[in-house]
Amino acid sequence: MRLLEEAILANGRILDNDIIKVDSFINHQVDVKLMREIAKEVKGEFKDVDKVLTIVTSGIPYAFALAEEYGVNLVFAKKNPSRIVDLNNSYMEEIPSFTHGNISNVTVDKRFIQKGERVLIADDFLASGAAALGLINIINQAGAICVGITALIEKSFQGGRDKIEKQGYKVVTGANIIAFKDNKPIFG
Amino acid sequence: MRLLEEAILANGRILDNDIIKVDSFINHQVDVKLMREIAKEVKGEFKDVDKVLTIVTSGIPYAFALAEEYGVNLVFAKKNPSRIVDLNNSYMEEIPSFTHGNISNVTVDKRFIQKGERVLIADDFLASGAAALGLINIINQAGAICVGITALIEKSFQGGRDKIEKQGYKVVTGANIIAFKDNKPIFG
Repeated sequence: MRLLEEAILANGRILDNDIIKVDSFINHQVDVKLMREIAKEVKGEFKDVDKVLTIVTSGIPYAFALAEEYGVNLVFAKKNPSRIVDLNNSYMEEIPSFTHGNISNVTVDKRFIQKGERVLIADDFLASGAAALGLINIINQAGAICVGITALIEKSFQGGRDKIEKQGYKVVTGANIIAFKDNKPIFG
Repeated sequence: MRLLEEAILANGRILDNDIIKVDSFINHQVDVKLMREIAKEVKGEFKDVDKVLTIVTSGIPYAFALAEEYGVNLVFAKKNPSRIVDLNNSYMEEIPSFTHGNISNVTVDKRFIQKGERVLIADDFLASGAAALGLINIINQAGAICVGITALIEKSFQGGRDKIEKQGYKVVTGANIIAFKDNKPIFG
């Protein structure tokens, strides 16, 4: 989407070849209007969504806007630093964090994803795909249906899209960074 | 607000005398329509808002809806487990967590609260007031103006409102729990 690419070019800051900082409009300060406009565009890409699922924290604003477009509830998966998770009541996946270099137990209370529900995954970034693949596993554990994955910014050179599409899921992102060159993102 | 009180009575779960669990509609699964309706009502209570400030994580959906009502950006203060904060670039406050029993360094990048800006604080809960008072201090450090504080659910018996109002700030909440009796909240 042209709008998001322009925002990234104007306000994104590249920290090294792999990390682009978008804290002035996505993950510390949030450009609410931009989130809404992207949500409206993405709404046309996925049908019959019963629930939007994201993971704490910075995907919440975009996921909220999307859930509102579909008129459905939002669920945010939680990250638990503790190794102890009550697996009787929660679905759990271990998800490595690219940014933080650690592994989190990500959990969703079993009450909040029901069998047969059509669930759309939304996040701020899609990079290695680890978070999205973890959430897909949680949806599958619940006997629900993953409708697809959307993220604001994709770094496709990190392989996430390929892994997810190979599993048969549709991926829609607002801006696809295929490489960085001369400290600028190149969009695909 | 009648709507939120009804949701709390229908779906809130009291864990002990001090904690009410609202994870089915506020802080794990989010009732997006309810957030929007409360935001619309609260909008009339504060004027000339330039920015909405919340703190990670579970105040983000409500704060997003409010920011959208005002047509302004949202900023979420971050919690840093590390004691090391770059104070050249961030405002920082130590905020004790009632729920988790620890103290967090809460930070806001200096770029995101500008001198003279009128900032509304929004959160899911107002209890002891520690989080709100910390955010007020951050707003004051920035030379900005705190327009007031809003939360979805208030536990006024924990004293937060009194402390904040004594400092001269307006407080508006969606539901005010003044006590628990027979495992039910009593609204004020």
